[in-house]
Amino acid sequence: MTREDLTATHTRIAPYIHRTPVLTSRLLNQITGAQVFFKCENFQRMGAFKMRGAVNAVLQLSDAQKAKGVVTHSSGNFAQALALAAQSVGVKAYIVMPQNAPQVKKDAVRGYGGEIIECASTPIAREEVAAQVEQEKGAYFIHPSNDRAVILGQGTAALELLEDHPDLAYLFSPVGGGGLIAGTALAAHFFGQGCKVIGGEPFAADDAYRSLQSGVIESNLSTNTVADGLRTQLGDLNFPIIREHVAKIIRVEETEIIGAMRLVWERMKLVVEPSSAVALAALLREKEAYAGQKVGVILSGGNVDLGQLPF
Amino acid sequence: MTREDLTATHTRIAPYIHRTPVLTSRLLNQITGAQVFFKCENFQRMGAFKMRGAVNAVLQLSDAQKAKGVVTHSSGNFAQALALAAQSVGVKAYIVMPQNAPQVKKDAVRGYGGEIIECASTPIAREEVAAQVEQEKGAYFIHPSNDRAVILGQGTAALELLEDHPDLAYLFSPVGGGGLIAGTALAAHFFGQGCKVIGGEPFAADDAYRSLQSGVIESNLSTNTVADGLRTQLGDLNFPIIREHVAKIIRVEETEIIGAMRLVWERMKLVVEPSSAVALAALLREKEAYAGQKVGVILSGGNVDLGQLPF
Repeated sequence: MTREDLTATHTRIAPYIHRTPVLTSRLLNQITGAQVFFKCENFQRMGAFKMRGAVNAVLQLSDAQKAKGVVTHSSGNFAQALALAAQSVGVKAYIVMPQNAPQVKKDAVRGYGGEIIECASTPIAREEVAAQVEQEKGAYFIHPSNDRAVILGQGTAALELLEDHPDLAYLFSPVGGGGLIAGTALAAHFFGQGCKVIGGEPFAADDAYRSLQSGVIESNLSTNTVADGLRTQLGDLNFPIIREHVAKIIRVEETEIIGAMRLVWERMKLVVEPSSAVALAALLREKEAYAGQKVGVILSGGNVDLGQLPF
Repeated sequence: MTREDLTATHTRIAPYIHRTPVLTSRLLNQITGAQVFFKCENFQRMGAFKMRGAVNAVLQLSDAQKAKGVVTHSSGNFAQALALAAQSVGVKAYIVMPQNAPQVKKDAVRGYGGEIIECASTPIAREEVAAQVEQEKGAYFIHPSNDRAVILGQGTAALELLEDHPDLAYLFSPVGGGGLIAGTALAAHFFGQGCKVIGGEPFAADDAYRSLQSGVIESNLSTNTVADGLRTQLGDLNFPIIREHVAKIIRVEETEIIGAMRLVWERMKLVVEPSSAVALAALLREKEAYAGQKVGVILSGGNVDLGQLPF
């Protein structure tokens, strides 16, 4: 994936996404000791960066593919993102979701015109059901994170941030399935001025950290983290990019995630989801190393259940 | 108070305040049927518009007055605002607060360098103690809402909003002590193009609504509202301005306030306090009348106790 791929992606998706604002906070600068630029993807359409990759993937389908629709399996933000992206382009979206997914998430997908296909609550079941929809409907399968078009789309958040602030020394991103940090790493590589990309990952779901150590894709031993968007696994498309272009992954405890989230809510008055706070938690954990530097932080999304806050 | 007073105020306070962003939301436009421009004073320094009036009042003191400090009585945002405003200008601030004020609010005032003087939890006690501080310390008393410099300062939020969007047909503001809506009404009068100002007020603390009806300042019979910033009384400086320049006050139920607040949190990803949501609740309550119009809404602040949310 090249510099030109990223630029073309950004041009392609621009009419369908918000160019989200970059906010700063005197108080957060004091607390971190760095000069921090927050890319507010919580303000993105449907509330998370996932819209970028989803719409990029849908826009690159042929007319024949568009006519048959798209399918993915996700119980999280990508489910809503693909439903809205498909609706925006006039394409049918089949979303495979576990039967026990929260009603509020099912409602959101349906609100964006997505058709939900329920499955049992196991990774294997959802892959099988998605494959079945692919076969029966002829729908085009789009993976939430391990997909070329998705990775490029997610990279446009960092691209915009670096257009606004070209001289960032570091850029922090959460690490879940790896789509966002891989795209971010590509954007920093092609558009940064020596900008180093740092991942934030929960100790409780640290497949990326361990994969970087071992050099092969490791599995999550548990996914018992409040950062529900980061429970997913690295993939074979994004891992090589992460390996080549990500400087470091910092793991954080659950209390650090909740503390960073609370800081953003209380001090910046922004609603962000726990996964969003993981990047800031990583910066806070090792803040001495970044003191006085210009640091970008991607606030990846803001979809939380207000009835189930961790504080 | 003239057009020139407002312009001079804005120039005077500009170095001490944020020019807060104006945000829009496709979803809120759909829900209201209007084209809504939200002035995000929740992003203001110390988290609310109150900083504007406080810093304007402090900056207009003589050197002799500055040397002796300022005093106010408030358990809310004005307490923090005056402490921070005074600190920013290098002036001592005495803040009279009820003994039973929440610890988090006392901590915030002290964090901004304010000296807290405790009093009993009655309106009379706080006025008496403030008068005592005025006498003993020679400190200059600044009322949270019924003060010329404060009213002009609060009006600069609407002034900025109208600079950004000069053709607003309506501008919604919450009504508490009356400083914000009086300043907003002046700004709309001098800088709008026929822009009408509408107040939002809780049924549970509707002194302004009833005062407009009777033509004299009425008292709140109760102040049992979740909108804790709006429990205060109109004053004799702001009431005449409200009477002359505010088109209408719409009263809202507690459930409407909480619903509007939740909408802003969930759909706009903004942390706003209940008082902030009252203006939007008023728009929603009578939305048919504003359909298709350009409407400004002042989101007045974002200081909430995350441990005590109403949803």
